[in-house]
Amino acid sequence: MSSKPAIGFCGLGAMGFGMATHLVKQGYTVTGFDVYGPTLERFTKAGGQPATTLAASAKDKLFYICMVATAQQAQSALFDSEDSIVKSLPEGATLLLCSTVPASYAQSVEKQLNDGGRSDIHFIDCPVSGGAIRAADGTLSIMAGASPAAIEKGKWLLDELTAPSKLFIVEGGIGMGSNMKMAHQVLAAIQILATGEAFGFAARLGLDAKEVREKVVGSEAWSWMFENRSNRTLAEDFFPGASALGIILKDVGIITSMARLTSFPLPLCTISEQVYTSGHNLGLTPHDDAMMVRAYFPDPVFSVTSTLSSSEKEGKLKSVQDLLVGIHLVSAAESLAFAKFLGLPLAQLYELAVDAAGGSTMFKEEGKLMIDVLEGKGGDGGRKIADVVDNLKKAVEEAQKVRCPAYLGAGALNALLLGQRKGEKASDVVRFWM
Amino acid sequence: MSSKPAIGFCGLGAMGFGMATHLVKQGYTVTGFDVYGPTLERFTKAGGQPATTLAASAKDKLFYICMVATAQQAQSALFDSEDSIVKSLPEGATLLLCSTVPASYAQSVEKQLNDGGRSDIHFIDCPVSGGAIRAADGTLSIMAGASPAAIEKGKWLLDELTAPSKLFIVEGGIGMGSNMKMAHQVLAAIQILATGEAFGFAARLGLDAKEVREKVVGSEAWSWMFENRSNRTLAEDFFPGASALGIILKDVGIITSMARLTSFPLPLCTISEQVYTSGHNLGLTPHDDAMMVRAYFPDPVFSVTSTLSSSEKEGKLKSVQDLLVGIHLVSAAESLAFAKFLGLPLAQLYELAVDAAGGSTMFKEEGKLMIDVLEGKGGDGGRKIADVVDNLKKAVEEAQKVRCPAYLGAGALNALLLGQRKGEKASDVVRFWM
Repeated sequence: MSSKPAIGFCGLGAMGFGMATHLVKQGYTVTGFDVYGPTLERFTKAGGQPATTLAASAKDKLFYICMVATAQQAQSALFDSEDSIVKSLPEGATLLLCSTVPASYAQSVEKQLNDGGRSDIHFIDCPVSGGAIRAADGTLSIMAGASPAAIEKGKWLLDELTAPSKLFIVEGGIGMGSNMKMAHQVLAAIQILATGEAFGFAARLGLDAKEVREKVVGSEAWSWMFENRSNRTLAEDFFPGASALGIILKDVGIITSMARLTSFPLPLCTISEQVYTSGHNLGLTPHDDAMMVRAYFPDPVFSVTSTLSSSEKEGKLKSVQDLLVGIHLVSAAESLAFAKFLGLPLAQLYELAVDAAGGSTMFKEEGKLMIDVLEGKGGDGGRKIADVVDNLKKAVEEAQKVRCPAYLGAGALNALLLGQRKGEKASDVVRFWM
Repeated sequence: MSSKPAIGFCGLGAMGFGMATHLVKQGYTVTGFDVYGPTLERFTKAGGQPATTLAASAKDKLFYICMVATAQQAQSALFDSEDSIVKSLPEGATLLLCSTVPASYAQSVEKQLNDGGRSDIHFIDCPVSGGAIRAADGTLSIMAGASPAAIEKGKWLLDELTAPSKLFIVEGGIGMGSNMKMAHQVLAAIQILATGEAFGFAARLGLDAKEVREKVVGSEAWSWMFENRSNRTLAEDFFPGASALGIILKDVGIITSMARLTSFPLPLCTISEQVYTSGHNLGLTPHDDAMMVRAYFPDPVFSVTSTLSSSEKEGKLKSVQDLLVGIHLVSAAESLAFAKFLGLPLAQLYELAVDAAGGSTMFKEEGKLMIDVLEGKGGDGGRKIADVVDNLKKAVEEAQKVRCPAYLGAGALNALLLGQRKGEKASDVVRFWM
């Protein structure tokens, strides 16, 4: 028997399974519950303790992690089930809700605990980011909001799940972890679809998808999502892939619901949601989100063999990069402007996202300058907005010629054109919202 | 033999055939050319004189109408063909270009005539609007730009094609007719897709499509396009229908190209173009543009039989109306703001569009107030922007729930949210561009 604390776990999906088995590898006894039997078997083989009821997973566990997919599932597991987690947790337990949920839902969990006489439970609102591989490595990015007392109790467990520099305690208590995750997912939601848009555009231009990948990765058109998803795009590794369309569609729905509630315009997130919804209606929800490339090109992109001359190729590869640069620039602005509006600490969002799934070269280089603009500091340097606009115009025009929908590229251009009226730097695009 | 002047005609498509046979019915000898043989036979049966070459259609014709589909076709027919129209037209002929083309193309025709020693030709840039039925009735709306001398020569012929109140001579010479048409097509392009979005949304809400039509027509959610297209939507009369997707896709491409050239943002036109492009990629280009409803709902909308209670139905019908009201309001603003930017006379655009294919109740009631805002006149009255925003938020939220893409509805909401920061009236949405 380990001398380390026993941990209860609920929700052994792609992310949860990685997190739970990582803890097992670190020597913890993890008792896991999942509604899907075969997952429970896999978990047992990986050294986990299977629980066949929520109550069994929670009984006597002073530390509990809930990693189900949605707020609805969390509500059912935590409170509404016959044998709910909260009913079974021992006095003084620490409860981590790692699911991506609306901040208002995290706040309602706190209220339900208090109203239900379980204010003894130390509750932490701590969504994660980084994908299944980093979950299994214990190097996730985590955004945690809670009372100082709860953070004190749970910090060692958060530390186990994350790399030292990737735990972000967000000031402001319950809900702020979720808000931070939402600001991050603005980047993620746009950049996942941008990857599909770039590969679809490239295919219609007659470019070899592998060359596109090589050209973009390491260039200013880079994003974490592009690099990550493009492996699956190239291999058609969509069934089920590593991150289902349903997940990002749920996340973007949380974002746009919050945007409507607070009357904050999010042009590219809004467009992304509609295109993801069209993917949902084509039955793609259970498949990898990289499969959204199908909204732009009907066949596997690896099937395109380039017959272009090397100078033609050079020009067209640049168009694909320009498309991504324009989209990533606006996604950075959209995320930071929304974060400012929600009262989130921008420096912390920057530090978090620059090295997480929302990262991009544009976010890294121009996002920093956008924070200066948002905070009213003049700030020099960075790209000229006119250059980004000119390049993006050409890319969108080329997309028009080859009949590639440029949902995000053309949408980004509109935001940039309005931003350009208000300043000369690329980072001035954030003035769209000011 | 008629004592009326002989007329040459090129381009007997849906619109051109109606125009040419209308002139035949008025007693003119019309010599028509078309590349498609069966059309020429139909034209002969309708009393027209068939021409098997362009030269034959133009020889000895002091009046000539070119109604081909694109600028490329016009260039070929007018100048580049072996037996081109311009080579065969007699001295002092009057040439009407009724195709929808970029203003810059119309200007290049003028230059080519002058450079080629045919400045004797009286050239009129005069795109039309109104659909095939009004073409055949001689009640089209026509936007004509030309020199006063050319207008004087050609006005009788324009009068034959249009109703007395529907001929708009736009100040500024060649190109301004095309610009006016483009400002009008901003409305058309958005409102055609809005019709599909409304019917798709309604189908996903479980509403009977016929009831939707009845509810919308005559309400503040009305548009000319909705009333016109909905007949074909309900009947699935798409093959080929009356107005091919390819036509509006071409028009919207002219608009967004001009917008890029002049750095003017057109959010809803841009979105429409991308969704139309996705329709093109599904093979819909030759079919009726009303078929774009397929982007929102996979089956014929008439197949939905409502099982809703009457109070449920009432609420959902209102959502569909609210969606349309929000979209039409922003389309009115987008068209008028762009027209102002292009230096077009707004009162004339208003008079033209309110009673043409771009018309909507929102354009009629709020467009007038938007012109006041754009012209710096205070102006009171009209709807509150907060009411439109609140209603549209609910509609977009409902679309999210039933997994209906709300490309235009959600895009319109973003524009309204920015407009709302700058004023309290619905017509203040036009400040998005100011």
